[in-house]
Amino acid sequence: MRNTIEVCFTPHSFPLYPHKECIVVVIDVLRATSSMCTALHYGVEKILPVASILEARNYQSKGFLVAAERQAQRVDGFDLGNSPFEYMKPELKGKIIVFTTTNGTQAIRAAREAYKITIGSFLNLTALCEWLAGQNKNIILLCAGWKDFFNLEDTLCAGAIAYKLDQTGMFETSYDSTLASKALYELAQKDLYKFMENSSHFIRLAKLNLQEDIRFCLKPDSAPVVPVMEGNYLVPVGHK
Amino acid sequence: MRNTIEVCFTPHSFPLYPHKECIVVVIDVLRATSSMCTALHYGVEKILPVASILEARNYQSKGFLVAAERQAQRVDGFDLGNSPFEYMKPELKGKIIVFTTTNGTQAIRAAREAYKITIGSFLNLTALCEWLAGQNKNIILLCAGWKDFFNLEDTLCAGAIAYKLDQTGMFETSYDSTLASKALYELAQKDLYKFMENSSHFIRLAKLNLQEDIRFCLKPDSAPVVPVMEGNYLVPVGHK
Repeated sequence: MRNTIEVCFTPHSFPLYPHKECIVVVIDVLRATSSMCTALHYGVEKILPVASILEARNYQSKGFLVAAERQAQRVDGFDLGNSPFEYMKPELKGKIIVFTTTNGTQAIRAAREAYKITIGSFLNLTALCEWLAGQNKNIILLCAGWKDFFNLEDTLCAGAIAYKLDQTGMFETSYDSTLASKALYELAQKDLYKFMENSSHFIRLAKLNLQEDIRFCLKPDSAPVVPVMEGNYLVPVGHK
Repeated sequence: MRNTIEVCFTPHSFPLYPHKECIVVVIDVLRATSSMCTALHYGVEKILPVASILEARNYQSKGFLVAAERQAQRVDGFDLGNSPFEYMKPELKGKIIVFTTTNGTQAIRAAREAYKITIGSFLNLTALCEWLAGQNKNIILLCAGWKDFFNLEDTLCAGAIAYKLDQTGMFETSYDSTLASKALYELAQKDLYKFMENSSHFIRLAKLNLQEDIRFCLKPDSAPVVPVMEGNYLVPVGHK
């Protein structure tokens, strides 16, 4: 029997999905998982995702470098925000970063009982799919959404992953959520940016002049790294 | 400000949507809301949706005519199942029917605190949209899904409703769930049946040789009626 790929559109629905034996791919395109992939690709050693601002402050008081975003903006008093461009700096090489965001880190937490957690974005699309194809496990693509509501960009990324994996012929992709995500991706793939223009988070970020962040986050394979959770940390596969 | 149209993909997510001031359109294309529209169009006087088999049995013992479906099949011992063709019979004219199904009647129950509940299907698409356009209320399109999971047919129908209402220029349709549903409908509209062929409930019903039911349920405007909940009953708008 072939392994399955199913898309879960929100962390709120995730407890309904049997997932203890699955690889869960957490997707938060704008911008948490894109920033995390960028950070690890540019040499950050590992990332400690935490769900609350309180936990983040606690780590900061112990001397950790902390990234904190809420409502699409950096939280006052923290070191870093949620733009992928912040994570390309040479001075972050070899560092550990504690990370809390509105949706992405909550979704990682929701998946904590999964067989394995990895993170997905357009930036690591091909690398991630190659790795997933070699795991021989059922896969759940968990969209972080926006405050437990469906969002378009995470669904498109889930669709891109499902589309790519479907082409290997190794997977069963007939779940309705997977069919819908794939169909949307196929419709949008020629110009993801344009397809996204009316979406809620695009508009939210555009109001903050973050169009360049959006453009970057929609570029496939700009950060070819496969982050997996090992204990409490996200580390890139192959990291020694 | 224009009224909004938002799509909720599953009853499980519905409590997250503020809905007390909204019209909620419950959609269960295969086959509950299609059968209900058919029944009311063919002269059934009113429908009493109930969530459980227990309630259904209770009404049956009081002499009511009862339709009960679980797992896509008529429940043993009840009068009617969930095929729209069962509801075209002249002997049902003027009757009251108690109705319980796997997903549709649960979704109606979930929406009980809404400003108003109506039901949607392809069969009443145009009539429903004309009525909705005249109500001056925010609208939530609530897909019944399958056991709290996303399904394709209800999403396509929600997309069809949103698409039609969007053309009036009277509504705000920029919620991501609405954009996605509309895009899927636009992709599928030329041949809904073909688009549905790989979907889970299509396969489930096809195994039971119910392809004719599916074909009928995807035909726009075959039962041009607008059922609304009045007290505990679904009655057609304009019924005296």
